[in-house]
Amino acid sequence: MNYQYYMPTKVIMGEDCILNHSDIFKTLGKRAMLVTGARSAKLNGSASDVTSALEAVGISYIVFDKVMSNPTVACVYEGAALAKENEVDFIIAIGGGSPMDAGKAIALLATQEIEETELFKGKYENKVLPIVAVPTTAGTGSEVTQYSILTNDRAETKMSIASNYIFPAVAFLDARYMAALSHTTLVNTAVDALSHAVEGLLSVRRSFLSDALALESIQYITEALKTIKAMDVPGKITAEMREKLLYASFMAGVVIAQTGTTVVHAMGYALTYFKEVDHGKANGLLMGSYLSLVEKEAPELAAKVLSAMSFTSVAEMNELILPLLGEKIALTEEEIEHYTQKVLKTSNILNCTVKPEKKDVTDMYVTSLK
Amino acid sequence: MNYQYYMPTKVIMGEDCILNHSDIFKTLGKRAMLVTGARSAKLNGSASDVTSALEAVGISYIVFDKVMSNPTVACVYEGAALAKENEVDFIIAIGGGSPMDAGKAIALLATQEIEETELFKGKYENKVLPIVAVPTTAGTGSEVTQYSILTNDRAETKMSIASNYIFPAVAFLDARYMAALSHTTLVNTAVDALSHAVEGLLSVRRSFLSDALALESIQYITEALKTIKAMDVPGKITAEMREKLLYASFMAGVVIAQTGTTVVHAMGYALTYFKEVDHGKANGLLMGSYLSLVEKEAPELAAKVLSAMSFTSVAEMNELILPLLGEKIALTEEEIEHYTQKVLKTSNILNCTVKPEKKDVTDMYVTSLK
Repeated sequence: MNYQYYMPTKVIMGEDCILNHSDIFKTLGKRAMLVTGARSAKLNGSASDVTSALEAVGISYIVFDKVMSNPTVACVYEGAALAKENEVDFIIAIGGGSPMDAGKAIALLATQEIEETELFKGKYENKVLPIVAVPTTAGTGSEVTQYSILTNDRAETKMSIASNYIFPAVAFLDARYMAALSHTTLVNTAVDALSHAVEGLLSVRRSFLSDALALESIQYITEALKTIKAMDVPGKITAEMREKLLYASFMAGVVIAQTGTTVVHAMGYALTYFKEVDHGKANGLLMGSYLSLVEKEAPELAAKVLSAMSFTSVAEMNELILPLLGEKIALTEEEIEHYTQKVLKTSNILNCTVKPEKKDVTDMYVTSLK
Repeated sequence: MNYQYYMPTKVIMGEDCILNHSDIFKTLGKRAMLVTGARSAKLNGSASDVTSALEAVGISYIVFDKVMSNPTVACVYEGAALAKENEVDFIIAIGGGSPMDAGKAIALLATQEIEETELFKGKYENKVLPIVAVPTTAGTGSEVTQYSILTNDRAETKMSIASNYIFPAVAFLDARYMAALSHTTLVNTAVDALSHAVEGLLSVRRSFLSDALALESIQYITEALKTIKAMDVPGKITAEMREKLLYASFMAGVVIAQTGTTVVHAMGYALTYFKEVDHGKANGLLMGSYLSLVEKEAPELAAKVLSAMSFTSVAEMNELILPLLGEKIALTEEEIEHYTQKVLKTSNILNCTVKPEKKDVTDMYVTSLK
């Protein structure tokens, strides 16, 4: 058995955890840069908790609030330039996956010169600004991974910077920030977290440890999705369930930090890049098709995933998830051929325990979106 | 839910993992000190793998091979003096819990002046030599914890240095080194690992994450103990089972890094200090009594532990474990009173979900050892 485990982030969870642990910022430097989207960090209270904590311990800060959904390479170079100009010591990334992924890339680019053409090639020096991550959705797991997923227009897809140097130093998990989420974002992000746990189980890099966390995570997220589905009208879940979702999403993040993701993510990236389908929704639409393929070649593996959800068939899983995701999208044959070509070149394919052929990828697009 | 997770050690597992990852030593410095016991690291091949790897990457080293079982405070001060005198950059601790725990304390004491009377008080500076841990038993989990357990003659017991600064930077897990273990050591160390996973489940600091790892760990260790028990004569377990045990012990280490241990460990320390009972054996003798107490006050919790072993009663668990541990020891009433007083002062008591009263501790000593 050849195996590696590494996840050095200090995770601190609980109501008011940022204010209660403001001392920790002092260990990271004297000047911070907040990296956020335009609005949500302000609306959900996370940004003001962070700035109050920084003020309490006498740390100055600047704000970079230009991170869009699916942040671009240009955006992170812009943020890095600002960080350099202001000589900040560390980065505090607040939000869903987009600001956290952008913050991690900014922390890298603020300390070393990397050409755009080299950004995804994996050659980085061990000097990156410390990163504090504050997730405000329960989905991405980015607060505990070494990945920064960016939109790369050169390659017409989303691509990963993957480096142990960009694991956040600290992650603060306060589920109160999730109270402001829309129903759609709550669902899509929960399905994203579910796809991480499921894909972790289906990865060739799975281990006893990642399996244990993935199964636990799948169980909690399924429970939450069942509760959400059972609501007559879209409403708010309980604070307790939000906390469980945030915890499950963190565990699923630890899983993919070890296992990587599979063809589901690779296929989803094309839908997001070309069709602007939300990332979690894209994964949710595609997951059932890949699980059906797995079922054919490794039925006991598919059964393990389904059993964690208390399901006995992929159809049951789809019945839970698909109605929550809203409208499907239509693809032309040419689009499917184009996306399939892109998917086959990704490293995610190598991660799959059940390796999809070209025909399988095409078929999965067709069956997922019909 | 207030919760923290931290376990920054990079774990690398597999046959020949040290030689295959010798480059990693170069990131830690130019001069190393090996910390070992007198013999086992030489006999099981671990020390020569380490020195070959160091030579391959041009790192010089000295050896401190004076670590005894249940290492003393004096021993780690002696090792630290040697490390300082030779200006070593990092520590490589090889062996069971004793050399690893000693190595961690030496790494701390080599960089800061701490009086013996202050050693267990938790005030340390964030400057500790990097530590590489090479476990050669599957029991202690010390390779992934922030604990260094030392024999403190002033307090007449074993005590912990607990600090995030002494998490090893790297742990190399190569199960080949376990092939040389005696039957008794194999059993006692496996029972030690089992007690970590079980006590993690019984700790007030348990979490979904620690539970998931603990349950998985309990399952593998129980399977191994059943195999060992079924052997007609003491023999060798398979390489695959050794690897599973080493993995389970690592997972149980991650568990106690989060949860701490309970009254079982506290009671065991007295048996080890005063009666020289092996640490794992002591835990194994006592675990059933505490689980019986838990069963009375929190039956569903005890059932969870037992069910991970495929047992339905504490008696069944004891039937598996106790015969493997060999002879019990006899205590006088005075000894029990003396040990009970010591146990009640430990922080382990605070960790217990089911808090034992004085009478409970006394009763547990009596029933465990009769």
